Amino acid sequence: MSKFADRADVPQVAVPRLARYVHLLHRLDGQGVARVSSRELAEHLGANAAQIRKDLSYFGEFGVRGVGYDVKFLISELSRCLGIDRDWSMVILGVGHLGSALARYRGFRDEGFKCVGVFDRDANKAGEIVAGFAVRPIEEVVDFIRENAVEIAVVAVPAESAVEVAALAVEGGIKGILNFAPVRLPAAPNVFIHQLDLATELMVISFYLSQE
Amino acid sequence: MSKFADRADVPQVAVPRLARYVHLLHRLDGQGVARVSSRELAEHLGANAAQIRKDLSYFGEFGVRGVGYDVKFLISELSRCLGIDRDWSMVILGVGHLGSALARYRGFRDEGFKCVGVFDRDANKAGEIVAGFAVRPIEEVVDFIRENAVEIAVVAVPAESAVEVAALAVEGGIKGILNFAPVRLPAAPNVFIHQLDLATELMVISFYLSQE
Repeated sequence: MSKFADRADVPQVAVPRLARYVHLLHRLDGQGVARVSSRELAEHLGANAAQIRKDLSYFGEFGVRGVGYDVKFLISELSRCLGIDRDWSMVILGVGHLGSALARYRGFRDEGFKCVGVFDRDANKAGEIVAGFAVRPIEEVVDFIRENAVEIAVVAVPAESAVEVAALAVEGGIKGILNFAPVRLPAAPNVFIHQLDLATELMVISFYLSQE
Repeated sequence: MSKFADRADVPQVAVPRLARYVHLLHRLDGQGVARVSSRELAEHLGANAAQIRKDLSYFGEFGVRGVGYDVKFLISELSRCLGIDRDWSMVILGVGHLGSALARYRGFRDEGFKCVGVFDRDANKAGEIVAGFAVRPIEEVVDFIRENAVEIAVVAVPAESAVEVAALAVEGGIKGILNFAPVRLPAAPNVFIHQLDLATELMVISFYLSQE
């Protein structure tokens, strides 16, 4: 009855919406709800039912008209697509205020992103305990990633050292980088780099407010 | 010669790109560069020249073929569009690890987003100093926003109290909210809400890595 998703078809911009669907579906599942229609999902989320149907259509024709989607099945399909049906190991590079907060961030652990080590360029910070981990000198990150098969690095160093620090992670064989430093990292083969500049996120607001 | 931008035409998704252009242009300006072509911008950014020309076309026909854009003029136009030609006042709601880091985040100040107060629901935190501010009880935020004409609130409380805390900011007359709590805030009239769930940003990476 159901066709499984060819995940290459799901566009990256849909990821935040898929994440919202999973959160809601977990809540509904916890309340004992077995099936849900796109209209009900739309009402819960304050979103557009047509958009939801389009997003879920990537996962095949398993929504049955008048019957809706099987909640548990949809959770399983969406989680697999988002890669949150498993855990990911992660290092935090830079334990200033932001890096330390990210190392301790409960929201990452809850979704299966497990911090396994923290690193800093400042030798004076070595040995300090952050989120239960002794801070290691950044030079050790290449071997650490290699030996522990770490998959994701979070770059939380100042702009001026981000490129250098990210290069060490790449050398160690990292697969993905979430970069908080407000500087573009150079592309590296077989490494997926996602840029997140917090100040730019505030500019989305100042942009909007300036239009009035 | 130049038509000024009708900023309502610039799509919100262009904001991160415009922010990158401004950063680069400031750097070029600092190096004494007076004019730059879309091709040169593309080379510096590792981006697509056609995309850059399209983005800048919102600001009128002030790029002259073969001569390029006037760097200072472009900085001024883009900054005005992004709302970073002025300062914004901001409160941080929630001073756990993440909220404290955000209150201290240099990248916000550098772009003109000035923290003017920090608040927490936990009465035990009242009076603690975070980023130079004594933490105030959350109940005081309504009057504080009103009396100080605060424009932006950053919500960094746990999911379960985000709706309640955001409602206080709305009651005080806040204009924009950046919400880090992984929960959708209800729409409020004349308030622009921007959602930023850090775990979802990691899912962009796990999504991509799971496709391989």
